[in-house]
Amino acid sequence: MRTTNSLALLTDLYQLTMAQTYFQSQRLDPATFSLFIRSYPPNRGYFVAAGLQDVLEFLEQFTVDSTGIDYLHSRRLFADDFLDLLKGLKFTGDVWAIPEGRLAFKDEPFLEVTAPIIEAQIVETFIINQVNLQSLIATKAARCVHAAGGRAVVDFALRRAHGIDAGMKVARASYLAGFTGTSNVRAGQEYGIPIVGTMAHSFVSSFEQEMDAFRAFIASFPNNSILLIDTYDTLAGARKAVEIAKEMAANGQQLQGVRIDSGDLKKLAIEVRRIFDEAGLKSVKIIGSGGLDEFDLADFTVADVPYDSYGVGTKMGVSADAPWFDIAYKLVEYDERPVLKLSTGKVSWPGKKQVFRMRDERGQLQKDVIALREENIPGADPLLQKVMASGEVAVRCPTLEEIRDNFMGEFKRLSDPIKAIRNPASYPVEISPQLTKLREEVGRQLGGPE
Amino acid sequence: MRTTNSLALLTDLYQLTMAQTYFQSQRLDPATFSLFIRSYPPNRGYFVAAGLQDVLEFLEQFTVDSTGIDYLHSRRLFADDFLDLLKGLKFTGDVWAIPEGRLAFKDEPFLEVTAPIIEAQIVETFIINQVNLQSLIATKAARCVHAAGGRAVVDFALRRAHGIDAGMKVARASYLAGFTGTSNVRAGQEYGIPIVGTMAHSFVSSFEQEMDAFRAFIASFPNNSILLIDTYDTLAGARKAVEIAKEMAANGQQLQGVRIDSGDLKKLAIEVRRIFDEAGLKSVKIIGSGGLDEFDLADFTVADVPYDSYGVGTKMGVSADAPWFDIAYKLVEYDERPVLKLSTGKVSWPGKKQVFRMRDERGQLQKDVIALREENIPGADPLLQKVMASGEVAVRCPTLEEIRDNFMGEFKRLSDPIKAIRNPASYPVEISPQLTKLREEVGRQLGGPE
Repeated sequence: MRTTNSLALLTDLYQLTMAQTYFQSQRLDPATFSLFIRSYPPNRGYFVAAGLQDVLEFLEQFTVDSTGIDYLHSRRLFADDFLDLLKGLKFTGDVWAIPEGRLAFKDEPFLEVTAPIIEAQIVETFIINQVNLQSLIATKAARCVHAAGGRAVVDFALRRAHGIDAGMKVARASYLAGFTGTSNVRAGQEYGIPIVGTMAHSFVSSFEQEMDAFRAFIASFPNNSILLIDTYDTLAGARKAVEIAKEMAANGQQLQGVRIDSGDLKKLAIEVRRIFDEAGLKSVKIIGSGGLDEFDLADFTVADVPYDSYGVGTKMGVSADAPWFDIAYKLVEYDERPVLKLSTGKVSWPGKKQVFRMRDERGQLQKDVIALREENIPGADPLLQKVMASGEVAVRCPTLEEIRDNFMGEFKRLSDPIKAIRNPASYPVEISPQLTKLREEVGRQLGGPE
Repeated sequence: MRTTNSLALLTDLYQLTMAQTYFQSQRLDPATFSLFIRSYPPNRGYFVAAGLQDVLEFLEQFTVDSTGIDYLHSRRLFADDFLDLLKGLKFTGDVWAIPEGRLAFKDEPFLEVTAPIIEAQIVETFIINQVNLQSLIATKAARCVHAAGGRAVVDFALRRAHGIDAGMKVARASYLAGFTGTSNVRAGQEYGIPIVGTMAHSFVSSFEQEMDAFRAFIASFPNNSILLIDTYDTLAGARKAVEIAKEMAANGQQLQGVRIDSGDLKKLAIEVRRIFDEAGLKSVKIIGSGGLDEFDLADFTVADVPYDSYGVGTKMGVSADAPWFDIAYKLVEYDERPVLKLSTGKVSWPGKKQVFRMRDERGQLQKDVIALREENIPGADPLLQKVMASGEVAVRCPTLEEIRDNFMGEFKRLSDPIKAIRNPASYPVEISPQLTKLREEVGRQLGGPE
């Protein structure tokens, strides 16, 4: 695998052509860009912020290496003095951001970057790439956890996630949002996430008899066996698992569970549960997998289908019903002048901002207010923190476990109608009078519609 | 960014638990696994094979490094002698595969791996991950190229592709399928793909006057300027671009084009074209972008909307209408015994296979036949090549340009109804009598439905 030493050129060419023009026209003043999501995908009423840690590491390490400079030189598009500038370029700006694992809503800045405009512009592509992916998956995963109604959910998405990086980030983002483990061994190693998994259909079919496969497996993993029972006939498989469980019990061992991965997952769980219960094996757990998403999980929860936990793969790992966010990174201030874009359907909020979150007397989330950064709303919780100052990380980065705990603590304070899997209610997000006024002023100067 | 030295542990935990059981029960015989797609997503009638090069590099370099072994040891799940085996494990098997850029259809093996079962099993997850992503995007990109009806299409997907690896592979896969360039600078450097792009809305809005932004840009790139004209008012932007083009003409320069990225893209293109034509600027090109996919492009082609080229981003880069394939890697033979899986809706074809492609007298693709590998169909083109022998790459890997040429050569021989963007006709894929017979025999032995 060819791996990239420097990620700095993981950017759109136009970032560099714009940078050269800024340089040649001596427009080097500080700019502020704001990253936000313009609309909810279908059935979404909230977002889970994620991806900040990778953004901060990228910004701290930003450098265009010499092979990158050589490549750009070979394009005959750039002036030598601009390439000299690029060669020594570091990211020296400030970043304010909503911490990972916090809830965020439409139009709220996930992060704001203030830096000399060349720096702030070149890093756009990477920042969007990571925040989009990780927040997208954290949001989808939170929906799965919510729909599972207390049952454990684990990540099986690696094989159909979009590439290597996505496989890793899906494991991290889903764990952050309340999943209890991942099948991805590398993610376990990298992020300290519990790893899970026992056997596949190929294992069973490599033996001439299903029973031989089960016996071989429990001999290797007597304390940790989930038998996959649907390779040939799920109910026959369940009866074989009963036999195995009884053999194990005679040896003082206990079969942990069985997994069903195909067929009518609702009906089969009920029948398999009955087979185990009638055999006095109430402790044997049933794990469901195979094309599941939050819509299935919500149906199973309502119907009280007797699954103990779920493996959720592809549809979570690609956020199948909404595989991208309408996310944007927009210039909101240049050289202390608030800036606005008026393109149809893409109007932005000018100036440096803060988001204030308010709770009611019971501690439930009540509403957010998007305001100018210098505003203060007494009693409200300001979401954006200054996480980077002059190119250096300015906070202690929380551990993944802390982020996960923070997420789960806040998520339970979001009301159920907003968390609904289908047609959620909308969470109130207001704009402060000062920000509204600023947008009107800037809009008027531009002769635009607002 | 934490980068992975070894990708060997980018696998599902169950691959390793199964491997330990194979090891402990001394099941070390060769197995053959077959990778195929079980069904077409909506509106798809063909696939474009891609991802093989990364698979071959992964297999050649496969090794579990010492930090990986230490991590697995810490899980207290694996026996020491198994971890010793894992430490020295290399991939020593054979791979047969359909070359990248060739068309493939439902149920056809994209590749088949024959190796000692532990090796063949552990590499499953990575192989699916890469072939799924790259074939998915190559297929989506081919649809865009076809829909554009001869107009150039370039990749703008990096920012919303799912992570770093996806951003790179989307650029490669879309170029392979006929795109003419990418905005992704790193992909240009890595793969030699032409890079494209000029300016964003933020560039325009950082200037107090749109005209100043345009003038600054053409001063830096007099031979290569595409002005983005929709930051405030697209038609007013077009009139300013006319003024710029006339100023340039007075200096012996030529404005290359303008880009429209929002609003009613169909209507605006017609009006902008008229503005340029009336000003005698027929050579100024119009580039369309902003949420486009193959459905939009097909509509524009039918209506002859006057775009000269398109930038296609998010919806191509995540294959938005079908963000994953129903792709599987199934055991088809173990220790020379053909193997079958009978799970509901997931029946597989046993044995080592070959796919034969037949053309009619005009050279048009006529039908494919999935057969046993040892079969021979005179006059037909066998698609799977032996690309790896005993763990070493056994062919000269084609360059990306060669793959792209091969794709375009074959794609034009696929009939239009099968290439239709909506409700395509189905391409005939037959099963050879010998393979049909083998499946019946194996099914009977298993007492299954077939």
